[in-house]
Amino acid sequence: MILSDESRTDVSKQNSKEIPDIVIGRLPVYLRTLRLLADDGRDVTSSQELGEHLGISSAQIRKDLSHFGEFGKQGTGYNITFLCNQLQKILNVDRVWSVVLVGAGSLGNAIANYAGFESRGFRIVAIFDEDKAKIGRPMGSVHVEDFANLAQRIQETNAQIAVIAVPTSAAQRVADQLVEAGLTSILCYAPITLTVPNHVRVEYIDPVIHFQHMTYYLG
Amino acid sequence: MILSDESRTDVSKQNSKEIPDIVIGRLPVYLRTLRLLADDGRDVTSSQELGEHLGISSAQIRKDLSHFGEFGKQGTGYNITFLCNQLQKILNVDRVWSVVLVGAGSLGNAIANYAGFESRGFRIVAIFDEDKAKIGRPMGSVHVEDFANLAQRIQETNAQIAVIAVPTSAAQRVADQLVEAGLTSILCYAPITLTVPNHVRVEYIDPVIHFQHMTYYLG
Repeated sequence: MILSDESRTDVSKQNSKEIPDIVIGRLPVYLRTLRLLADDGRDVTSSQELGEHLGISSAQIRKDLSHFGEFGKQGTGYNITFLCNQLQKILNVDRVWSVVLVGAGSLGNAIANYAGFESRGFRIVAIFDEDKAKIGRPMGSVHVEDFANLAQRIQETNAQIAVIAVPTSAAQRVADQLVEAGLTSILCYAPITLTVPNHVRVEYIDPVIHFQHMTYYLG
Repeated sequence: MILSDESRTDVSKQNSKEIPDIVIGRLPVYLRTLRLLADDGRDVTSSQELGEHLGISSAQIRKDLSHFGEFGKQGTGYNITFLCNQLQKILNVDRVWSVVLVGAGSLGNAIANYAGFESRGFRIVAIFDEDKAKIGRPMGSVHVEDFANLAQRIQETNAQIAVIAVPTSAAQRVADQLVEAGLTSILCYAPITLTVPNHVRVEYIDPVIHFQHMTYYLG
C-alpha cells in the first residue's frame, strides 16, 4: 500500500543549512530517474530499484530523502508522481528559471538547441557574443545579442542563472561581468576554476574531469 | 623547504580498492587547478591555497592526497610540477587515450573542436553518425564515419573510451553497441541513466543537473 499524498510529511526546508551539499547534488539525479520511470508509465518505485538504476545503495537514497520528509514506507515504495513533485519543490524547479548563455560558438549552439531544458525548469532567454558576425543570428529560440548589453539584458529578462560557453581565455572576464550584473549562479564550461565572491555559486562541466576519473580505473 | 622528489613516498596504487570513488573524482580537479597554477609560472602551492581556489577545506585536500603518498610537508607546501606528475600517473593520464565520439550534431561538433583534450591525456580518433549527410564530413581533426563501422573501428583504433552525444532516444542503443564492441568507459551527454553491465563505467554530463543543484539555493 502506498501512503496517500496527504499523509506524507510535507517538504520542509527549515533545516536546509544542515543538509550536506553532496546530498543536494544527488536530488536532481533522483528526479531525472523518477521522471524517466514516469515516462515509462510507472506509478511506483523503490529505493532498491532507484539504487540499481543509479549505482547507489538503497540505504543512501533513503537517507538522502529522509532529510526532507517521509516519502515512502519500508516495503511499499514511492509514489513516483508525488516524489517527483516534492523533489521539484525542494529544488525550486516547480517554476521556470530564465538563463542567459554567453558564447555563441559551437558549444553555445549545442546548448541553445538542447531540447531538455524547459520541461525541467529552465529557459534560455538570451545568448551573448562579442563576435559581430554572430550577433543577430538566430540560435535556439532566440537571436544572438551583443555582449556589451549583458547587464541591461539581465535586468530586463530577470535571469538568475548564466552559462559560460566561451574560450578559456575569456571565461574569467565574462564571469566578472556576470557577477557585476548581479548573477549569483554560474555554470561554466571552460576548463578553469573561476575566481568569484563567496556569495556566487559556480558549477563546472568539463569532459576531461570525467575522462580522467574513468582512466584511473583503466590503468 | 620543499622535499626533493626522490625523498617523497612514491605513488602506490596497491590499496586502490580502499580509496573512495568520490576521492578519485576530486583528483582530476586538483590536477586541473595545479596545471593552471603552473601555467601562471608558479612553482609551489599549499593545501590552503588549493582549498581556497576550489571551495574545499585544506584538510580534505590533504586527506585525499594522503591516500596516495606524502606529497608535501606541513607548512612548506607542494611542488606543483611534482604533484602534477604524480597525479597524472595516479590517473593514468601520463599517456594519451584514444576516444571515439558517437553523434556528429552540434554537440558532437562542439566536443570534436574542444581544444583541451590532447594536453590532458585524450585524443578523439573517430566520430560516428548514422546520418548519411554527415558521414564523410570533416569534424575536429577527423572525418565523420558510418556508425555501422563502430565495432571494427574501435578495434582498429584501440579506443577505450566513448562519448555519447546523440539524442536521448538513441543513447541506450548506442551504449549497447559500445558495450558489445568491448568498451568499458562511457561518457554520456544524453539526459538518461543508461543500463549497462556492472563492469562498464558510465559518467554523465547534463547541464540541468547542475542548474537544479543551484536553484535549490536560489529558492
